[in-house]
Amino acid sequence: MHKRLSLFVLCLLGGLSAAADSKSPVDYVDPFIGTTNFSVCHPGAVRPHAMMSVVPFNVMGSDLNRYDKDGRWWSAPYEFTNRYFTGFAHVTLSGVGCPEMGTLLVMPTSGPLSVDHRNYGSAYQDELATPGYYANYLTKHNIRCEVTATDRTSIERFTFKKGEAHLLMNIGDGLTNETGGYIRRVSSTEIEGSRLCGTFCYNAQAVFPLYFVMRVSKVPREAGFWKKQPLMTGVEGQWDADNGKYKLYKNYGRELAGNEVGYYFTYNVDEAEQIEVQVAVSFVSVDNARRNLAHEQQGCDFEKVRQEARRAWEKTLGVVSVEGGTEAQRKIFYTALYHTQIHPGILQDVNGEYPKMQSADNGTTQGNRYTVFSLWDTYRNLHQLETLLYPERQTDMVRSMIDMYKEWGWMPKWELFGRETWTMEGDPAIPVIADTYLKGLRDFDIETAYAAFHKSATIPGDSNLMRPDIDEYIQKGYVPMGTYVQDNSGDNSVSHALEYYVADHALANLAEALSKKQDAKLFRQRSLGYKHYYSKDYGTLRPRHTDGSWLSPFNPEDGADFSNAPGFHEGSAWNYTFCVPHDIMGLARLMGGKRAFVDKLQMVFDKGLYDPANEPDIAYPYLFNYFKGEEWRTQEQVYRLLHKYYKATPYGIPGNDDCGTMSAWALFSMMGIYPDCPGSPWYSVTAPTFDKVTLHLDKRYYPDGDIVITAQRPTPDAHLIAQMSLGGKPLSRYRISHQELTKSKTLHFLLK
Amino acid sequence: MHKRLSLFVLCLLGGLSAAADSKSPVDYVDPFIGTTNFSVCHPGAVRPHAMMSVVPFNVMGSDLNRYDKDGRWWSAPYEFTNRYFTGFAHVTLSGVGCPEMGTLLVMPTSGPLSVDHRNYGSAYQDELATPGYYANYLTKHNIRCEVTATDRTSIERFTFKKGEAHLLMNIGDGLTNETGGYIRRVSSTEIEGSRLCGTFCYNAQAVFPLYFVMRVSKVPREAGFWKKQPLMTGVEGQWDADNGKYKLYKNYGRELAGNEVGYYFTYNVDEAEQIEVQVAVSFVSVDNARRNLAHEQQGCDFEKVRQEARRAWEKTLGVVSVEGGTEAQRKIFYTALYHTQIHPGILQDVNGEYPKMQSADNGTTQGNRYTVFSLWDTYRNLHQLETLLYPERQTDMVRSMIDMYKEWGWMPKWELFGRETWTMEGDPAIPVIADTYLKGLRDFDIETAYAAFHKSATIPGDSNLMRPDIDEYIQKGYVPMGTYVQDNSGDNSVSHALEYYVADHALANLAEALSKKQDAKLFRQRSLGYKHYYSKDYGTLRPRHTDGSWLSPFNPEDGADFSNAPGFHEGSAWNYTFCVPHDIMGLARLMGGKRAFVDKLQMVFDKGLYDPANEPDIAYPYLFNYFKGEEWRTQEQVYRLLHKYYKATPYGIPGNDDCGTMSAWALFSMMGIYPDCPGSPWYSVTAPTFDKVTLHLDKRYYPDGDIVITAQRPTPDAHLIAQMSLGGKPLSRYRISHQELTKSKTLHFLLK
Repeated sequence: MHKRLSLFVLCLLGGLSAAADSKSPVDYVDPFIGTTNFSVCHPGAVRPHAMMSVVPFNVMGSDLNRYDKDGRWWSAPYEFTNRYFTGFAHVTLSGVGCPEMGTLLVMPTSGPLSVDHRNYGSAYQDELATPGYYANYLTKHNIRCEVTATDRTSIERFTFKKGEAHLLMNIGDGLTNETGGYIRRVSSTEIEGSRLCGTFCYNAQAVFPLYFVMRVSKVPREAGFWKKQPLMTGVEGQWDADNGKYKLYKNYGRELAGNEVGYYFTYNVDEAEQIEVQVAVSFVSVDNARRNLAHEQQGCDFEKVRQEARRAWEKTLGVVSVEGGTEAQRKIFYTALYHTQIHPGILQDVNGEYPKMQSADNGTTQGNRYTVFSLWDTYRNLHQLETLLYPERQTDMVRSMIDMYKEWGWMPKWELFGRETWTMEGDPAIPVIADTYLKGLRDFDIETAYAAFHKSATIPGDSNLMRPDIDEYIQKGYVPMGTYVQDNSGDNSVSHALEYYVADHALANLAEALSKKQDAKLFRQRSLGYKHYYSKDYGTLRPRHTDGSWLSPFNPEDGADFSNAPGFHEGSAWNYTFCVPHDIMGLARLMGGKRAFVDKLQMVFDKGLYDPANEPDIAYPYLFNYFKGEEWRTQEQVYRLLHKYYKATPYGIPGNDDCGTMSAWALFSMMGIYPDCPGSPWYSVTAPTFDKVTLHLDKRYYPDGDIVITAQRPTPDAHLIAQMSLGGKPLSRYRISHQELTKSKTLHFLLK
Repeated sequence: MHKRLSLFVLCLLGGLSAAADSKSPVDYVDPFIGTTNFSVCHPGAVRPHAMMSVVPFNVMGSDLNRYDKDGRWWSAPYEFTNRYFTGFAHVTLSGVGCPEMGTLLVMPTSGPLSVDHRNYGSAYQDELATPGYYANYLTKHNIRCEVTATDRTSIERFTFKKGEAHLLMNIGDGLTNETGGYIRRVSSTEIEGSRLCGTFCYNAQAVFPLYFVMRVSKVPREAGFWKKQPLMTGVEGQWDADNGKYKLYKNYGRELAGNEVGYYFTYNVDEAEQIEVQVAVSFVSVDNARRNLAHEQQGCDFEKVRQEARRAWEKTLGVVSVEGGTEAQRKIFYTALYHTQIHPGILQDVNGEYPKMQSADNGTTQGNRYTVFSLWDTYRNLHQLETLLYPERQTDMVRSMIDMYKEWGWMPKWELFGRETWTMEGDPAIPVIADTYLKGLRDFDIETAYAAFHKSATIPGDSNLMRPDIDEYIQKGYVPMGTYVQDNSGDNSVSHALEYYVADHALANLAEALSKKQDAKLFRQRSLGYKHYYSKDYGTLRPRHTDGSWLSPFNPEDGADFSNAPGFHEGSAWNYTFCVPHDIMGLARLMGGKRAFVDKLQMVFDKGLYDPANEPDIAYPYLFNYFKGEEWRTQEQVYRLLHKYYKATPYGIPGNDDCGTMSAWALFSMMGIYPDCPGSPWYSVTAPTFDKVTLHLDKRYYPDGDIVITAQRPTPDAHLIAQMSLGGKPLSRYRISHQELTKSKTLHFLLK
């Protein structure tokens, strides 16, 4: 009783302190978190799940930058420690580990016209970023830049000093590995065009055009195209004064296409004069980009768009309320939530048109058609977050995936703006949709989804695009080395198979729910094939040859830090060995029982074999919860990892955010629940970071309403669970079902 | 009497022999004439004054070719002695000395797909060309190619051997110095796009897009884009498998833009299977290109288009009938006429739309809007030919020029598809329009034309775009060296001024006709300023400095063969010294009288200082006619030059045909009349090549009808004039007026 009382008091105090706190969730978001340390998030202006983002681009044109778009594997339009700004990119990816998009670069400059980004770029200061708004000051040009966005359009406000000024639209440069585009002059204040993007992660056929319209608020004194001229040889090279240079097309007002083209607007500006730029995009057509602009911005009102963007984030972030924790923890939490609500984003224009999957045709949708499905990452926790907090969005995401299958014959693997990029491996749509269905969201065509899953899980040979090594997988129960080598990362046979086991387990669960008992039995049996890889010699999974022999020599530590190791894709055997979330007890038996399992997993942490930013092992900390008496290890590790790797600074994410996957890990972990087995409607629990977390569930999907997770914390650093209660009843298990959680309404922790 | 009788008999015989000859003028045209020897004509399919031409392209991709598009100053899509064919170019220039156009390359291939022209090109044989039709056989691919054209569209028929076949549209390569374009897939059998062309003669701002639609007659098995990838560096370069290579976009069906892009259609074809390709173009829009195709080709009927093309040429060439002469001479004659009726060509689409001069806007015309005005060349004789034989066309050409002035404020100098290219010098629209007006064609707005001429002849300073050295020209009466150096050809001061003198003389004539007496006096006086350049020391024109001093050292032979010499543009002092067609007698006085003039002019021929392919001196042979008793020298030189330089072989034109200027020289010379002073309605006469030439004049413009030029030739090689009669009356002058000629109806020569 005493404890209950004190809990009540604490809740009361928490409630009071929250009431005294006038900050809204939006105010806690720091978009600079995750903008260095290879987290590859950006501080630009974007609305939740929007098509448009407006992002400061500072990764080209100067040796002053530590990271250059063409160097290493650099994949973000912005790097916090870089210093040389070359414009605002329109439409970017957040937290993605391959360079893509990051073009349509709008740059304001002053002084004589230069269209060479090695010259016109500028250092900057006074950066400011809040959800939906970014500002800086260009010290070379003395220009204040402010940008904000609607779902499919941007508005940018530039405040100049008196003198000559220019607005540049550079469609030649960008992060993307594709090149080429065209610009057409529409009027003195408007241009339109398109830019090819794609070859994402060097998948050569995953390409698509990004259409745009750009409008300026003031008629320029002069305007024109530019193009960097290809090098000519011979007489032509000698006589063409622009050979190999940036050429200005000064008296030409029609259209220009090429690899490195742009358009400039030149002005004489007064002191403090402001000129606004609007950019609208579409993946369907220039006309649709213009429609998007007409629909989303009537006229040209920067402040209105900025306020609307803030309100959009207030609505999205307001789904969770937290009390307690430090200011920094609240920043980490809400910024993580912010990062999870950027991708997938909408693909359709205001008229509902979108490019059909892998098609030259366009479709029309009523609801939202989502795109940017980084499923190998996000099937692990991000879609579980959507299911819990944004069930309407998750339903539309599932519908979008099913529509892709209808359009193209396959579920997405890593879908990008209507193209399958074949990045990473597995059959990740299965755990996503199975998980969603099993958690009770069912307003989509599950039979069609099931047909898609059954197809990719069973059809043999080369016609199986989703599982290129299906024959061996079915025949042998595992994928031998060398069966299918997709790209420069070498043999990934074990990684492939592990994903199929996870998918087939999820498919078995779904089949069961759909009363397809034979299928359920078949796929569940297949999901256990991971045992083929278990090497008693090493106590890890280990690649095998076609004849069943083991890869030798073998070192389970090979492949750490994204170096190539046979069998494992971007990871070591240690990063993958426990990645059998659907049969932890079976894995433990293989390893020699509970003690051996727990000791080995503990050793992974103790010896630094755990990578906090690599998806296959991110559920590891929660696996101790399977073993009675060992759950404190989960609490210790989650507490340690959160404190060590997640910070309210630009360094605050341990690596690629992967479309919010790392952020979702932190977010769930701070709430005290984690979906450790995709495709199973369960959460693993740990000690929450906050004293009180209220999940304002959508009553259309969860009629029981809010879930309140509370924690009584005798000391500030208490992070071990002493006692728990669920719906007011004592709880001794450390894994709870989705239904238990959503119906119980309260989950309470007494910490120690 | 005896002579008259025999003449009658000869005429009768001539008439009989003509009647026996079933060949039409079209049959005498050999489009291979002028396709080597730097004449830069082409054997492709084109209709009279058409926008479209379909031309075999054999100037890239192989060291087997003697001439490569990027080598030397090569400027033609085709060279007779080259052997490596890489497709059919769509829209080309004929006889132009700067590389331009020659893109939209359609190539049929067989065997495995290659999109690299260094691989897919082929040797060929069995070439056949007649007006409006060209065919060859690709020996590498075993494909018979046939092409024909309407005014704005083409149709191409390819006959394959059984097997794999491809149709390629390469918009990356071409003669033009500009680069870049885009292609959009419209359907399985249609693509559209545009290609930037221009920077003609390295005038950087003279650029314009060429829009196109391409249709194939059979649905391909497979189709897609290609693009040569720019070289990447660093990690990107290592990981992108297509880095620096031709990349195929196999599963992508939207659009592609860039520097080196194309599209392929792949088929399985049966033995002897034919597939047709249609290409339509426009300088306004892709939609207009499609309109042009719909209007000019209903359906897809190769033979119909081919027959229509032949009929179009029959109508045009039928304006002149010749009798007598050798088969070779008739070939030379009709091929020359053919070459004069290619440029200027129509610019407007079937709906009348065309790109306004130097504008991003489009205009609409009722009549033909002409383009490709190589006026520094064609003012000398080609427009005089149009005025005489095709007065309706010439009227539309003049109207087009006046409309350019209305649209842009200036007359054209070297206009190319709506852009002024500023190639060569002078004010050549004045002699063209003055000449036309003075010859009685007056259905155009002469007052507006006069306003344009007055403007360019008088307004001072930098705002005078037509005459950049106007101030010095007016103040000093000549242009001093270094006043205005336009391009890589160095100082052209004398050439500039000489053109102004010619123009001001024509303008004086026009002013007189318009009763502007004061203007007439002013401009006539200015036209005599050439005397400032006459150097008694050298007996030639000679460049002068601003202080009046002469260029020293000086060699009047410098500048021959298109080497640079100060003062003279693409020529020596000898090529320019007699280029004062409006004041030959004054020039003779300067030189010391008739004898000195005649001897010096004769020496120019005797010492090989005459260039038969350089415009400033092409009237030289006719200048002897100014001096009584010396006219035989004209007859000798014209006869010699015709025989030496004009042949019925690919080598049959002495140099750049310059949009038909060389051909017009031959044509007039073979008819026995030559317009030796542009802007004066006079012809100089010489012995004609044929026994009878009938000019079927357009009675709407020349109510007196046909002109018949006859020659009585006692021996086959008689080429000196013994006697002449005009309208039946004896003629002793060797210069006759346009009115005399057109009203007299007959011009008879007795040769010796």
